[in-house]
Amino acid sequence: MFRTIALLVCLTLSAALAMAQDRAPQAPVSAATSECLMCHESLHPGIVEAWKKSRHAAVTPAEAFSLAGSKRRISAESVPEKYADTAVGCAECHTTRAEKHADSFPHSGYSVHVAVSPDDCAQCHAKEREQYTRNIMAEAWGNLAENPLFMQMVRAINDVPVYDGGLLSSRAASTSTDEETCFSCHGTKLRMTGIETRDTIMGEMEFPLIEGWPNSGVGRVNLDGSKGSCTACHARHQFSMEMARKPETCMVCHSGPDVPAYKVYKASRHGNLHSALGKDWNYSAIPWTAGQDFGAPTCAVCHVSRVAGGDGVVVAERTHAMSDRLPWRIFGVPYATAHPKSADTSIIRNADGQPLPATLDNRPATEFLVDKAEQNKRLAAMQSVCLPCHDASWVDGYFARLETTIEETNAATLAATRIMQRIWAEGLADDGNPFDEYIERVWARSWLFYATTTRFASAMAGGGDYAVFENGRYQLMETVRKLDDWHRARSAKADVNTATKTPTTAP
Amino acid sequence: MFRTIALLVCLTLSAALAMAQDRAPQAPVSAATSECLMCHESLHPGIVEAWKKSRHAAVTPAEAFSLAGSKRRISAESVPEKYADTAVGCAECHTTRAEKHADSFPHSGYSVHVAVSPDDCAQCHAKEREQYTRNIMAEAWGNLAENPLFMQMVRAINDVPVYDGGLLSSRAASTSTDEETCFSCHGTKLRMTGIETRDTIMGEMEFPLIEGWPNSGVGRVNLDGSKGSCTACHARHQFSMEMARKPETCMVCHSGPDVPAYKVYKASRHGNLHSALGKDWNYSAIPWTAGQDFGAPTCAVCHVSRVAGGDGVVVAERTHAMSDRLPWRIFGVPYATAHPKSADTSIIRNADGQPLPATLDNRPATEFLVDKAEQNKRLAAMQSVCLPCHDASWVDGYFARLETTIEETNAATLAATRIMQRIWAEGLADDGNPFDEYIERVWARSWLFYATTTRFASAMAGGGDYAVFENGRYQLMETVRKLDDWHRARSAKADVNTATKTPTTAP
Amino acid sequence: MFRTIALLVCLTLSAALAMAQDRAPQAPVSAATSECLMCHESLHPGIVEAWKKSRHAAVTPAEAFSLAGSKRRISAESVPEKYADTAVGCAECHTTRAEKHADSFPHSGYSVHVAVSPDDCAQCHAKEREQYTRNIMAEAWGNLAENPLFMQMVRAINDVPVYDGGLLSSRAASTSTDEETCFSCHGTKLRMTGIETRDTIMGEMEFPLIEGWPNSGVGRVNLDGSKGSCTACHARHQFSMEMARKPETCMVCHSGPDVPAYKVYKASRHGNLHSALGKDWNYSAIPWTAGQDFGAPTCAVCHVSRVAGGDGVVVAERTHAMSDRLPWRIFGVPYATAHPKSADTSIIRNADGQPLPATLDNRPATEFLVDKAEQNKRLAAMQSVCLPCHDASWVDGYFARLETTIEETNAATLAATRIMQRIWAEGLADDGNPFDEYIERVWARSWLFYATTTRFASAMAGGGDYAVFENGRYQLMETVRKLDDWHRARSAKADVNTATKTPTTAP
Repeated sequence: MFRTIALLVCLTLSAALAMAQDRAPQAPVSAATSECLMCHESLHPGIVEAWKKSRHAAVTPAEAFSLAGSKRRISAESVPEKYADTAVGCAECHTTRAEKHADSFPHSGYSVHVAVSPDDCAQCHAKEREQYTRNIMAEAWGNLAENPLFMQMVRAINDVPVYDGGLLSSRAASTSTDEETCFSCHGTKLRMTGIETRDTIMGEMEFPLIEGWPNSGVGRVNLDGSKGSCTACHARHQFSMEMARKPETCMVCHSGPDVPAYKVYKASRHGNLHSALGKDWNYSAIPWTAGQDFGAPTCAVCHVSRVAGGDGVVVAERTHAMSDRLPWRIFGVPYATAHPKSADTSIIRNADGQPLPATLDNRPATEFLVDKAEQNKRLAAMQSVCLPCHDASWVDGYFARLETTIEETNAATLAATRIMQRIWAEGLADDGNPFDEYIERVWARSWLFYATTTRFASAMAGGGDYAVFENGRYQLMETVRKLDDWHRARSAKADVNTATKTPTTAP
Repeated sequence: MFRTIALLVCLTLSAALAMAQDRAPQAPVSAATSECLMCHESLHPGIVEAWKKSRHAAVTPAEAFSLAGSKRRISAESVPEKYADTAVGCAECHTTRAEKHADSFPHSGYSVHVAVSPDDCAQCHAKEREQYTRNIMAEAWGNLAENPLFMQMVRAINDVPVYDGGLLSSRAASTSTDEETCFSCHGTKLRMTGIETRDTIMGEMEFPLIEGWPNSGVGRVNLDGSKGSCTACHARHQFSMEMARKPETCMVCHSGPDVPAYKVYKASRHGNLHSALGKDWNYSAIPWTAGQDFGAPTCAVCHVSRVAGGDGVVVAERTHAMSDRLPWRIFGVPYATAHPKSADTSIIRNADGQPLPATLDNRPATEFLVDKAEQNKRLAAMQSVCLPCHDASWVDGYFARLETTIEETNAATLAATRIMQRIWAEGLADDGNPFDEYIERVWARSWLFYATTTRFASAMAGGGDYAVFENGRYQLMETVRKLDDWHRARSAKADVNTATKTPTTAP
Repeated sequence: MFRTIALLVCLTLSAALAMAQDRAPQAPVSAATSECLMCHESLHPGIVEAWKKSRHAAVTPAEAFSLAGSKRRISAESVPEKYADTAVGCAECHTTRAEKHADSFPHSGYSVHVAVSPDDCAQCHAKEREQYTRNIMAEAWGNLAENPLFMQMVRAINDVPVYDGGLLSSRAASTSTDEETCFSCHGTKLRMTGIETRDTIMGEMEFPLIEGWPNSGVGRVNLDGSKGSCTACHARHQFSMEMARKPETCMVCHSGPDVPAYKVYKASRHGNLHSALGKDWNYSAIPWTAGQDFGAPTCAVCHVSRVAGGDGVVVAERTHAMSDRLPWRIFGVPYATAHPKSADTSIIRNADGQPLPATLDNRPATEFLVDKAEQNKRLAAMQSVCLPCHDASWVDGYFARLETTIEETNAATLAATRIMQRIWAEGLADDGNPFDEYIERVWARSWLFYATTTRFASAMAGGGDYAVFENGRYQLMETVRKLDDWHRARSAKADVNTATKTPTTAP
């Protein structure tokens, strides 16, 4: 009965549909998707029009599968038979594997789920999904939520200050605050909390209530138990390769002072070439050929894409395990270390029992980190992307500088941490939560913002500005000095009223 | 006599004009504008060429008026007869309503005024002008200049420090400094101060001297008594709709830490889609259709434009009273409140008599603010723009988070303010000008920069970076802690040398 | 023998070359360059493809020289005969003047040098090279490295902090750190340190080891003794005029808080027009005509390019001595002054013997600075670029504001410096290195970041944000207050526990 009414309403709503042949998808549409479109083309034209521009609307999985070699974008060994000969439309993604999704709900005669998961996509894109599982980003929810030390930082950032009777304390922030801040990028853990009835233009309808929704974070825990969100980079519903290959897509989660990749890129020569001449590049070629298709790397060139050099020879395979080309982990923790072995970093415990890849005096938790051989393999993979444009002496000189910068920023973090430890030891601050007091926040800035930015500037050839004055070494050294200045002013053991001057090396 | 010489000189100067038919405006040009062009095409080709690309040069008001429905861009009930059949050129704008303009001056036989006003434009664009009058931006000059508390902040920012005999004081900044800073965006109050004679290539000529010039601020007080400057968004002299609809136009006044709309947008998914794929969008369609014309909103989509959803149905009417879609005011004041009723906010007085929409302990001045019913109406208007791309559960979840963020950032401001009040009460700072001392500046940062940025990140889905680390909650909480740290170190009533640690809630 | 093997290997590698006629350069290629391409087209396709898009690949010097007037891009009085009739390819630049280059090394039968220098380019681009020599940027290496005061700042920024036994000191940063930070933009001093043998796909080959490599800084000291690096703005190997004329190219070295030109531009009306409408502009026209080719200036319009106004009349000649249009020096030093006379600023000594253009109490070292007449000449040259789009009253009003801002920011620096001097005098800090202690860093921020940014916002009409809240006057005045606050808290001669309030002028 409901379906009949709905169909009648939608037939009126979508009068324009039949005539709009020029905007119709090129591949045949399944009966189920056709029913979706009858209403949703009118109700959600933004989504539908984006989809119409997508490759999903243009070719059937069977056609896509028939392409040879690197042109084929389906990596599964076969395509599900029932999806083979129609476009990948609304129903193909939002009704597939319905029994696996806790958010499946009856809707116009179908069992529909709101949050499409990587395991849904994996029916065609199996290899990408498997690679992504090995990516530290796939575990981003747990890497934060299940790391008690990191959660102390979340609380110290998000909780709401209360000042009463001369005492500053805090009350817990709401769940929604955590969702729209840290877990906006890390991904939320979705949870069904009930069903609500909404008035719609088709009368009352029931919809699921989902805690943690909306979210497109890279490590979202989905209602089928899978982890990740392909739409974090391949935004709905155009799923454009061009978009995923442009740096602004990564910027959504990688531009703050804690992980300033986009800003450093934008101010680098590579970013300069992209800004000035990138309008003439080809963002859709597979493989993606240096010189011919692009004149300088975007994020995707170095970290993800199948890249070709001269004579079309592939120099780097596509990977959705970005760590395949990452020897070091340079942000988010006090000390840069070798990259973690496991995508799940919450399992790491250093020699002092902390969930950090190095102790506070920089002894690395080597058993959880890749070894030198693996680092070298990853470095070679990364360098293979540099070499089509730069000779070996250029590339070597550049990475030698990065290794020095890692060593020196770690040394700076050590100095900052030793001062902080003295402040704790003298009772001038309380290390219960090591991130919530003012002076602890200053210490955290020294590594979380400034050592990190300095490393990114080095790693991405964003030298001038970021390495020095834009959250770089200027601020790093100033912050270490500030910790010492604060300590001297408060400590009974320090002489407040004399110069804090200490010996420095000659130029 | 002068006109004869001028004409002769210009005939020589503009020899190229007659032949350059391909660059000629498409609509016939009035005799007066033709005279202007004879000289100014040579003297100010930048302006003239921009104008030639404009719709003003391409169609006559009569032709424009004849268009039906939403294609018609003239909103006056009729067009002035004398302007009906020629292009809207130099003379049509710069000599119209000459008797109203105090800056009208004799120039080559015409009475010309330099600063074209919204009332000049209103002869064709009556509705936009009327709407704009209800916009808080139309009153931006007075909203600052006639708010004594805000002017204390202007003085505390712009005045020039003087250090003499161990005492830090300040001297008044020059008028031009106020003009190029705060009033650059808010708009200056233009004032005729005399006439000057200049040597020009046509000999000596007289021109008006105007205090506050140049300026294109949104609330400029013009020499015909009107308020506003259409060129703030519709920049001279192309008056391009494309430009007004692109986010960089709003950025000119909305990207600092006090109102970081552009930066938050740029790092949001919406901004990401615009950066990556916006090159393929249509910025000139009326109505502006979701999906078909644009794939994600720019500033104009949410706040100004006539937007269509499915089947071309208009979901939001064009408005130049941006507040029509704004339930809350989230920046520029310590506490976010319901939006003010009147565009003139200088009339607001809170329960403590301050020109602020809430007291320093966050009791809102409700009689000056829109009520809940009006807020809901505005919220519905805004949400109608979201719904063509997002289902209701997505939109509801998103705005629920914003309401929580408003509550929590207000609570953070309250904590900061209570510490500041204690500092004042103990005589550690003087509240004569509450913004000029160092620790007052720290307090002002907490709400003016960090609570504001946190709200923008929530309101514009710019989560990850801005909400947390880029002038967001990290800095907000750090700043509250810093106020407490400073107070404890200075106060005789506080124990300086013990941890400032106070109880926080468990994760 | 080696050449034979290499040729065989390369013939295989570059099988695709012969057939790829559509991608072939349009001008004939010399025998030497042809040999280079046989290997490097396969090995370094990024470089080769970029070059193929360049004008260097498209026309021969003889053809280029035959163009008349401003279309001719060769400024030498003649072109070297041996290069006249083939494209300017690999060999033409990398084997020319081999005897002058300390880095020349035998490579496949040629004497090749890695780092092409301005003197190499000068064989065709003589005038640009001569102009550039007069540019302060040409001396950027020495202007930093040979200024002992500035080198104290380099050390205070780059050296690595060490905290031991409660004492904070520092150890020298590695050479590579200086190279990837300050000298990344200023340019490194290249130095041959030896020869290394590398395994290549053609067997073992020898290559030079060069200290300071890679680098493209504007003042690089090259291995032929020349100074500068044309690729700093004309990036390899497309050498695109479009790129040099777009603001992101300057951004690579001009966007940090110490010299925020790009960020201020981006938020200015000029930058707004470029962002919104610049996609339709012509970045290759010579001369570059206001209105016709561009609708608002980029960096190059104001500082470098040959600009035409109405009727194609040239209003500003191309210059690679950017100082030709710069009356003032507004960054990098405590006080803005008239521009230095000499490109080599390391020769400057003020009345107190410091290598600064003014003493710490702002007495300018006038004998090293251009006089008022020269300033006026440069101002007129700059204004000639404004006048095709703005009338004289607009331009005058704008520059009057800048002069006031220079005066007021200098006054603010004076106040900050007097407090700093008092701190030194009272022994609360040590002026041995005036930039390494925490409070010295606060002082340095006041002028290096905030006075500078304030001046840029004024100079580039980037008013609203940058002049006030984005590293502008808000931060400048806060920092001066902070210095005073710190001093009062530490000084035995100041009363810590009373308000730091001092008289301010009335609004």
